[in-house]
Amino acid sequence: MEALGLFASPAEAATDFAPPRAADLPDAARARGTKVVILGAGTAGLAAAYELGKAGYDCTVLEARDRPGGRAKTIRGGDKLTDTDGVTQVCRFDDGLYFNAGPARIPNHHVTLDYCRELGVAIEALVNANAESLYYHENTGSTDYGELASTPVTHRQAKADVYGYISELLAQAADQGALDTVLSPDDAERLIELATSLGGLTGGKYAGNSRRGYVDAPGAGHDAGVVGTPPSMSAILQSRFGTRFSFEFGFDQAMMMWQPVGGMDRISAALAAAIGGRRRITYNAPVTQITNLPDGVRVSYRQGGRTRTIDADYCIATIPPMVLKTIPSNFAQATKDALAVPTGANTGKIGLQYGRRWWEEDDKIFGGITATNMDISGIWYPSSGFLGRKGVVVGYYSGSYTDLPVADRETRAVAQGVKIHGAKYRDELETSFSIAWPKEPYSLGGWVNWPGGRGAAYDQLLRPDGRTYFAGDHLSYLIAWQAGAFESARQVVTALHERVAVTAA
Amino acid sequence: MEALGLFASPAEAATDFAPPRAADLPDAARARGTKVVILGAGTAGLAAAYELGKAGYDCTVLEARDRPGGRAKTIRGGDKLTDTDGVTQVCRFDDGLYFNAGPARIPNHHVTLDYCRELGVAIEALVNANAESLYYHENTGSTDYGELASTPVTHRQAKADVYGYISELLAQAADQGALDTVLSPDDAERLIELATSLGGLTGGKYAGNSRRGYVDAPGAGHDAGVVGTPPSMSAILQSRFGTRFSFEFGFDQAMMMWQPVGGMDRISAALAAAIGGRRRITYNAPVTQITNLPDGVRVSYRQGGRTRTIDADYCIATIPPMVLKTIPSNFAQATKDALAVPTGANTGKIGLQYGRRWWEEDDKIFGGITATNMDISGIWYPSSGFLGRKGVVVGYYSGSYTDLPVADRETRAVAQGVKIHGAKYRDELETSFSIAWPKEPYSLGGWVNWPGGRGAAYDQLLRPDGRTYFAGDHLSYLIAWQAGAFESARQVVTALHERVAVTAA
Repeated sequence: MEALGLFASPAEAATDFAPPRAADLPDAARARGTKVVILGAGTAGLAAAYELGKAGYDCTVLEARDRPGGRAKTIRGGDKLTDTDGVTQVCRFDDGLYFNAGPARIPNHHVTLDYCRELGVAIEALVNANAESLYYHENTGSTDYGELASTPVTHRQAKADVYGYISELLAQAADQGALDTVLSPDDAERLIELATSLGGLTGGKYAGNSRRGYVDAPGAGHDAGVVGTPPSMSAILQSRFGTRFSFEFGFDQAMMMWQPVGGMDRISAALAAAIGGRRRITYNAPVTQITNLPDGVRVSYRQGGRTRTIDADYCIATIPPMVLKTIPSNFAQATKDALAVPTGANTGKIGLQYGRRWWEEDDKIFGGITATNMDISGIWYPSSGFLGRKGVVVGYYSGSYTDLPVADRETRAVAQGVKIHGAKYRDELETSFSIAWPKEPYSLGGWVNWPGGRGAAYDQLLRPDGRTYFAGDHLSYLIAWQAGAFESARQVVTALHERVAVTAA
Repeated sequence: MEALGLFASPAEAATDFAPPRAADLPDAARARGTKVVILGAGTAGLAAAYELGKAGYDCTVLEARDRPGGRAKTIRGGDKLTDTDGVTQVCRFDDGLYFNAGPARIPNHHVTLDYCRELGVAIEALVNANAESLYYHENTGSTDYGELASTPVTHRQAKADVYGYISELLAQAADQGALDTVLSPDDAERLIELATSLGGLTGGKYAGNSRRGYVDAPGAGHDAGVVGTPPSMSAILQSRFGTRFSFEFGFDQAMMMWQPVGGMDRISAALAAAIGGRRRITYNAPVTQITNLPDGVRVSYRQGGRTRTIDADYCIATIPPMVLKTIPSNFAQATKDALAVPTGANTGKIGLQYGRRWWEEDDKIFGGITATNMDISGIWYPSSGFLGRKGVVVGYYSGSYTDLPVADRETRAVAQGVKIHGAKYRDELETSFSIAWPKEPYSLGGWVNWPGGRGAAYDQLLRPDGRTYFAGDHLSYLIAWQAGAFESARQVVTALHERVAVTAA
């Protein structure tokens, strides 16, 4: 199939990665051993240590935080985070409840799933699209959404109505010969057949049907169900709900999507365990200086109130550039200039714990995302704990809340949620926890932006500075995805391994 | 929202069911007790016993098989089924592997999920749609599918291409004024905005993009990925893949969908346990005669080689009409005539156990359904056991195999699967098990068809015959769904309870 070039395969791995093997190295290198210091125990750092470990490299990972995973952080009861303003939040969620504050979804085709398989991390569905979740558009200064403004509408209903009406238009255009210049008569006929099916048309017209849901659902006996009447074509076009549909077609967003059972940090926990845990990883060890030496690298870090030093043959720095640029080093000026280019993305989330899963019980929403044009952006219903008692809704996924005091974030998120779900969104709330990634020490952003696109600075950081390599999702075309961190780590591991093989030969 | 009539709510229960309460009954009825014999321990029979039990009714369930659940049957290693031809199959699946031979999916809005919650049955996603699963159309005597004939194409790619081209046509028609008679200039502009987004158009044209997947996926460093070139608009229309998209919009098929963790029969097992297990249910007890008495019902059944008799105040017969009509009774002629009308649907499935989850490892297909125009109809990839070693693929979901010998069903299903997935579909197969519902004793069909629609016969069976009531999904507008069985049972329970209250007053 692929030979035909027709079956563009999302299955194909981004890289044909072969883990390094000790056998690839000359005897001298194997006998001597190679020491690698890895800065950061996020996904990239852990993956680098994991893969290098397969070939017997002697890796040490320095991590500023008290845990592995970096931004792949799952928030649970008892978690205590202090932001760069010095504001501390303690999470009061009940046992077993959590939300993923950083990456929260894994597409089918990302290498992340291969690592889950290899490491034995169980996965479950992450509900990224759900016919029962909602669209909500309120009027803005510049846009009038018409009669559906400020009206929550299910994805199911919006799809039925949008596809219904555009199919009616297509069928009409084809039938009236308006497309004769581009369609053969046979193709016009096939287009009408397609439109009739796609839109659920009757006699070429859309008049609503069960796809949009029922006003009175069908049941037993004579209860055939009652379907509602759709708004007018003009109202549907003015609602602009249809402009949101393509989200579900995205290469990295189309269902199915996945998450580790129990929280995203199960992956970093498994990686950390696989490389030897605290035998390989030093926590609470912020790096204070990086010095390339003629035949190695010296890294200083703080630990327990003292400055310590580690010497290694090579270094892999996975610290985000916004942080790394502040650490003294003897990097070349070109490297320092490059590290100063990328900026931290302004993004954050709030987890709202409710005493009752009203979205399931009342609204039959089992997972999924309600999309809005308010500054909460999206509301995520949890993809675990279905049919249980309590749950954590992600009440915003947005950077607009970063500069608000913690309490105001909750107030604002709840006020916006109430517009969609009514008073229970406020009344049944038990506790919340919010994160603003630009204010998270050692992250300083949800991900990295490259102003003006990937240019000279990006290219610069793909090259090692002396014996220091740089890795992370910011050095990939999968920014903000754990897969980007894995792919970047693999690339650097491969380059480093090839260099050791040549150097030691 | 609902007051506006805009928010057609799939959330609304089909019935506002209130479980019967002993307190609803006059003292005399409570003191005397009411005995109900229920024929069939499928979903309808178990649900009736469960709900009546809440009000203290003395229920006995007679079941012909050695297990509860009826068609809600999960096939596991060790299962032994003998069909109406006398052919016995023994299932050789490995421990922990299974497939659901009857109902396999639960929509968000079905009452089935409420029972799962009430009974503590854990659920997980049933992947009913997946961007990575495939469409496959081969030419038939009457239809030429063009250059994409006999080519498996991912749902992702088909959607990108179909929506891309129809959006291009829409934008062109709107731009050229071909829709001016039905669209205001503002609406035409909104339509162009919608088409541009929905189709991923550039300059009003569709030329392929990452939504369809990559020929070379993006990765680290300079690996930006390579997107393939789409087939022509004509080829896409001729493929007719787009006519399959509306499946995912269906009221009962749109994602999310659900299944019980561990197999569909977890629901009937929980119901059976909740009503008291063998204290209430007599297994291996096929009914041989039903006699309405002036003040009750007498039911005879075979058990352990002997005929036994049970007398009750009321009877609820949930036995499928194709079976019930063959059981001697003193039902009115109108009832007997009505029972003779419905026919058993010809449907079946085969479960194929593979030694390796190649669909996940090689093709990145984690659950979902490949849709074909071959007589296998669909291929279902398992929605559990992700990232594990082995798995069971449902190799057909089709009635075309009913009359084939068991071995030929496997041969035919595999030959068709090979066309899509190549030789591994044959080479890595370990064992299979197939079911043909028309040949299953006590079912005689996958579900019930009402020839000519629900007419007088349907109406007749909604009424009790003497003190015998009829229930089952066939007496609902949710045929073939467990929800239909639940809703029908609730309706009959309500009617019976109201009658007892009046009769005993």
